[in-house]
Amino acid sequence: MPTRNATATWTGGGLKSGKGEFSGESGVIKGKYNFNTRFGDEAGTNPEELLAAAEAACFSMALSLGLEQNGTPPQRIETKAACTIAQQGGGFKITTIKLDVTASVPNVDAAKFKEIAENTKKNCPVSVALAGVDIQLNAKLA
Amino acid sequence: MPTRNATATWTGGGLKSGKGEFSGESGVIKGKYNFNTRFGDEAGTNPEELLAAAEAACFSMALSLGLEQNGTPPQRIETKAACTIAQQGGGFKITTIKLDVTASVPNVDAAKFKEIAENTKKNCPVSVALAGVDIQLNAKLA
Repeated sequence: MPTRNATATWTGGGLKSGKGEFSGESGVIKGKYNFNTRFGDEAGTNPEELLAAAEAACFSMALSLGLEQNGTPPQRIETKAACTIAQQGGGFKITTIKLDVTASVPNVDAAKFKEIAENTKKNCPVSVALAGVDIQLNAKLA
Repeated sequence: MPTRNATATWTGGGLKSGKGEFSGESGVIKGKYNFNTRFGDEAGTNPEELLAAAEAACFSMALSLGLEQNGTPPQRIETKAACTIAQQGGGFKITTIKLDVTASVPNVDAAKFKEIAENTKKNCPVSVALAGVDIQLNAKLA
């Protein structure tokens, strides 16, 4: 039952005057963020980019398992994830993650590939965790 | 309505033989992952660390707004997030994210602070997105 840790620190005041930093325990991921890297055009990262990376990473890994269990392990899976946050009422809501997947899978039937990809979208652990988000899938064979 | 992009690529086969890489469009976050960095003890990152970072970053930022709206902007908020994935049935489920928050907030009433922190846990955008996860909060004033 792995538990993975990360820390974020916010200093310097409220939403627009303050600034944040996050880091994961692995040392691999860390970054600075603020109101403008999240809701504006300032270069930098933000929580939505982290969610897009988590969903893309989990989906790609889980799809490799589904294809393997079908007897058609993949050579390569590339998943692009686009995570949108929109203003709703007085606040913000993370509305959608769109997945655009291209896979190289020798000998797989195209319809079966689509079925496995759809199942992966519904059932991979990060998709299940992100139950509040509409996850959309466009998957094709290379 | 910002949309943030990330890509993950899986190569070399199925769940245990393959390996992954992810990167965010900002260039700030990128990493390699595989079965052993996710479910085993190999050093490295994984989707659960990305989710922990996203939740910690969003929570800290949103709490700064709640405290600001209370007339008591924070000097510093530190949020540690621990994301657990557990074996369930034939697969894996992301079960909990535990938040451990320490905040320096001049002049705030302790009960009001707890109330604002609880509301932030329920309503910050990443918490709402992660509707499939039990998010737990331990918040205290420094």
